[in-house]
Amino acid sequence: MSQESTKKYNIDHLISKRAINRQFIHFNSDNSKRAPEGFLPHPRPLGLAYGRPNPQYYPIKKITIALDEYPFQDSLFSTKKHDEVSFDVLRVADETGSIGLNEAFQYGDLNGLPAFAKFVKQFVEQIHRPSYDNWLTIGTSGASDGMNKAADAIIDSGDIVLLEEFTFTPFVNSVLNAGGIIVPTKLNLSSTDAKFDVAYLSNLLNNWDNLKPEHKKNKPKALYIIPTCQNPTGITHSIEQRKKIYELASVHDFVIIEDDPYGYLALPPFSKPNILEIQRENISVDEFLNNQLIPSYLRFDTEGRVIRLETFSKVFSPGLRLGFIVAHENIIKVIKRNAAIGTRSPSGPSQLILMNVINQKLGGLQGWLEWILKVRLAYVHRRNVLINSLTELRAYQNGYFGILSSEAGMFASIIINFPQGINKIDKLELLNYKLLQHGVTVVLGNKLAVDVEFSKESANFLRLSYAELDNDAELEEAGKRLTTAIEEFFRKDFNY
Amino acid sequence: MSQESTKKYNIDHLISKRAINRQFIHFNSDNSKRAPEGFLPHPRPLGLAYGRPNPQYYPIKKITIALDEYPFQDSLFSTKKHDEVSFDVLRVADETGSIGLNEAFQYGDLNGLPAFAKFVKQFVEQIHRPSYDNWLTIGTSGASDGMNKAADAIIDSGDIVLLEEFTFTPFVNSVLNAGGIIVPTKLNLSSTDAKFDVAYLSNLLNNWDNLKPEHKKNKPKALYIIPTCQNPTGITHSIEQRKKIYELASVHDFVIIEDDPYGYLALPPFSKPNILEIQRENISVDEFLNNQLIPSYLRFDTEGRVIRLETFSKVFSPGLRLGFIVAHENIIKVIKRNAAIGTRSPSGPSQLILMNVINQKLGGLQGWLEWILKVRLAYVHRRNVLINSLTELRAYQNGYFGILSSEAGMFASIIINFPQGINKIDKLELLNYKLLQHGVTVVLGNKLAVDVEFSKESANFLRLSYAELDNDAELEEAGKRLTTAIEEFFRKDFNY
Repeated sequence: MSQESTKKYNIDHLISKRAINRQFIHFNSDNSKRAPEGFLPHPRPLGLAYGRPNPQYYPIKKITIALDEYPFQDSLFSTKKHDEVSFDVLRVADETGSIGLNEAFQYGDLNGLPAFAKFVKQFVEQIHRPSYDNWLTIGTSGASDGMNKAADAIIDSGDIVLLEEFTFTPFVNSVLNAGGIIVPTKLNLSSTDAKFDVAYLSNLLNNWDNLKPEHKKNKPKALYIIPTCQNPTGITHSIEQRKKIYELASVHDFVIIEDDPYGYLALPPFSKPNILEIQRENISVDEFLNNQLIPSYLRFDTEGRVIRLETFSKVFSPGLRLGFIVAHENIIKVIKRNAAIGTRSPSGPSQLILMNVINQKLGGLQGWLEWILKVRLAYVHRRNVLINSLTELRAYQNGYFGILSSEAGMFASIIINFPQGINKIDKLELLNYKLLQHGVTVVLGNKLAVDVEFSKESANFLRLSYAELDNDAELEEAGKRLTTAIEEFFRKDFNY
Repeated sequence: MSQESTKKYNIDHLISKRAINRQFIHFNSDNSKRAPEGFLPHPRPLGLAYGRPNPQYYPIKKITIALDEYPFQDSLFSTKKHDEVSFDVLRVADETGSIGLNEAFQYGDLNGLPAFAKFVKQFVEQIHRPSYDNWLTIGTSGASDGMNKAADAIIDSGDIVLLEEFTFTPFVNSVLNAGGIIVPTKLNLSSTDAKFDVAYLSNLLNNWDNLKPEHKKNKPKALYIIPTCQNPTGITHSIEQRKKIYELASVHDFVIIEDDPYGYLALPPFSKPNILEIQRENISVDEFLNNQLIPSYLRFDTEGRVIRLETFSKVFSPGLRLGFIVAHENIIKVIKRNAAIGTRSPSGPSQLILMNVINQKLGGLQGWLEWILKVRLAYVHRRNVLINSLTELRAYQNGYFGILSSEAGMFASIIINFPQGINKIDKLELLNYKLLQHGVTVVLGNKLAVDVEFSKESANFLRLSYAELDNDAELEEAGKRLTTAIEEFFRKDFNY
C-alpha cells in the first residue's frame, strides 16, 4: 500500500554501526561465479559436506502430547469433564503446517523452522497488517533475546533511548549493554485517567537541546514502549496516541521498539467473581479481532521504523524460550546475522511443541486465537477474585489505596495514597516490610522506575500479579493480607 | 587438590572489560539491609510479585516419549527386533533427577533447570575432573551460543586470539564480534603423522614481538582449540602435548578455549565394513572412560584458565540448541550476567527431553555413556563404509589422494596429492566443480582456513562427513563419485 513512502524512506541510518559492520563468514559460501565453462551440477548430489547428523542418530522415535482443553481444566472450569486430547507428533513434516521430529531435532533455519516461520508471517499479515511491504520476521529465544537483539540492532555507544518512566526494567540492561543512554519519558498515573503523556514527549523532542543540554545534538534514536497493557502501569495507548507518537517518530526520526507480551490478554472491566457465569465474559475471535484488540504500531508504520517484539511466554509458556520479531527487512537482516553468530535458531523441541499443538490440534491460527481467549478468560476470573478481595476490606474503603489498573492481562496495580509531603519511596519500601510480615510479595513502583529521581513523586504504587498463585483461595488470602498490611501501616502513621 | 595454586592465581585480568563492566539490574533485588528493627518475614508468603504464569495456564497435560534402543534401529542394527521404549514425562519433578512438565514450561534458572545443572556438574566431576576446585558450569543454547559467550567473556577490542590454522571457522565470527584479532597457529598435516605443531606455538609465543611486530606488546589473550577429533583435520592432542600447551598458557598467561563437540565419538582405526560383526567394535563404558577418552584440558587446569565448551548436538540432536560451559567461577559469573540480558536459560522442553531420556530411561550417567557408545558404533560402521568405498578405486590406489584422518567422530579428511608447484587452492576449487558435476558435496580445506594465505600450501584437503546420508548405499555411492571425480581430474591434468 505504501510502497511509495517506503521507497522514499531509508531505515539504514537508524541501524547501529556495530550491527551493520558485524561480519558473518561461513565455509558454506557460494563460489559459482568461478565455475568453469560448461559446468553442470549433478541433479541429485550426495552430501558429504555438513555435520548434520542423520535423524536416525536421534534417540527419539515418537512423541505423544496430551492437551488440556482449557487452562485450569481441573479446577477453574471443572463444571464439565473434558476428554484428554492427545496426538502423536509426526516423524516427517507434512502439508498441515506441523513440524516433524526429524526437523525439530535437526539444525534449523535462523528464522525458525518453516512451519513456525510460516505461522508467524501469517499471524502478522492477518492480525497486525503493517502499512508497508518489506517487513520480515525472525524467531527469537524468548522476549529477552528479542529485546537484546533489537537493542543491538539500533543502539551504538552514546545513543539515546527513550523509555516510559516505569517499564520492564530488564530492557535497561539491553540498552546499557549496547552502550546506550536511557532517558525517561512521562506517564500520567492516576486511578481515573492513567495514560502515556504524549504532550511531554512531544515537548521533549521539540526542545531537546534546551531540555537535555547534556545530550545536545544527540536526539533519541529509539523509543521503547509497551503500548498495550503496559508493565507495570497497565496503560494502553489509544489509537489517536499511537498516530501521534508514530508521527513524532517520523518527524524526529527514531525507531519505535514495541514490546507486547500482554496485549492479547487485555481484560474487560472488573466485575464480581462468578465462576459459574464466567463464560459471559467470553468473546468470539471475531469480536476480539474487530473490536477488542488495539492495533499494533505496525499498523501505522509506513516507513519500517517499528520493531515489534512478541513472545509465546505469556500465552503458551515461558519455558519454551520462544518469540519473534517483526521489523523492516534491513533490520531483520542485521538481527539474523547476530543470531547466526550466537543463538542460531530457537529450540527445535520448543517450536515442535508450540506449532504441533497449534496446527495438529487447535486448528491453526483460528484455534490459536481461541486458546488465547481461553487463557484470557482464566485471567478475567483470577483478576476478579483478587480485585474483589482487595476492595472488600477497610483499607480500600478508607481510600488508603486506589486501583491504578486492573485490565492489563496478568497484572493489576494499586496506588498507595500517601499524604502530601511524605517521602513516598521511603514509605513504600517500609510498607513492603509490612507486606512481607503479613506474607504477601509484590513489586514496588520505584523498583520499576527507569530513573527513581525522575519518578519519585509517582512511584507510590504496587504491581500485583495474579498469574502465579495456585487457586482462588490463595488469591483471596493474598488480597486480604495486602489490605490488612496497608491498613495497619496507615493506622501506625506510616511506621512499621 | 590444587587449592594453593588456585589461590595464588587470579583469572580476572583475563576477563574482558566489557564482560566485567556489564550491568545487570533486576527489580527483584534484595533490600533486606534496610529492614526495620524487629522485622520478621511471614513463613509462607503468597506471591503477587512475578509474571510467572501458573503451570495450569500451559496447555500441555502430558508428554509421552518413545525411544529407539539403537540409532539406526530399523536399518543398521536390524538383526534383532527391539521393543519401543516409551515413558510419560512427570508433571512435577521427582528425586530421580527427572524434569517435570511444570518446571520445563516455567521460567528456568540461568544455569539450566536443577536436574540439568546437577547432571552437568556430576558429568564434569566424574568424566573431566578439573584440577582446581572453584569451577562452575552454565547451560547454553547450543555450541554457537557457548562460543559466542566465551569470546565475549575474554576478548576486548584489539585482543589477540590464536586459532588452529584450520578450524571450525564460525568461531572467527565470534572473535570479530567481540573486537578480537585472529592469528593462526600451525598444524602439521600429513597422512602419516598429522598433529598440532607445539614447537611452532612455543616459538611464536617466545618471540612474539619479533615474529608479530604488528602486534608488538599485545600477546595473545586466548587460544581456541578443538583438541580431540579436531574439525576439520581430525587431529587429537596427545597428553604430552596437552601438558606442554597448558604450560605455555600458564607461562604466557592466556586462556584456553577448549571446544569439544566430537571428542566422545573418537573411533578405532578403519576396518572393512561388516555389519554382522560390528559389535566387535563396541567397548564398555569402563574401557571408554579408562583407556579411550583423552582427558580434557580441564584435567591439567590448576589455575582456572580453561573454558570448556560442550554441546548435545552431536551425541543427542542439534535441534535441542543445548550445551554447557565449564570454567572458573569468575568467568561463569560474567557469562551468567550476559545470559541474563539475552538468552536467559536454554529451552525448557529441550532440557526436559534430554534429561528425562537420560534419567527416566537410559539410567543416568552410565546409561548416557552407553548411548554415546551406541552412537559411536553407528559412526564406526558408516566410516568403514565410506573409507572402504574411497580406497577401493583407482584414484586412491594411484596415490591421487591420501587419508588424512578417519578416526574423528563424524568427519574424515583426505589430502589431494597435487604435484609440486601447482596452485593448490585454485586447483582444489576447480576440483570441487568436478565433484559437483559427479554429484558429491564436500567442504574444501581452504574454506576452513583461518588465513588462506598462511595455509595456502596445506589447504589441499577435503572434509567428508559421513553423518548425514541416509544409508550405506548412499555412502558407498558418494565414495565412488568422489574417487571417480578425482581420477578424472587427474587424468585431465587438473583441468575441468
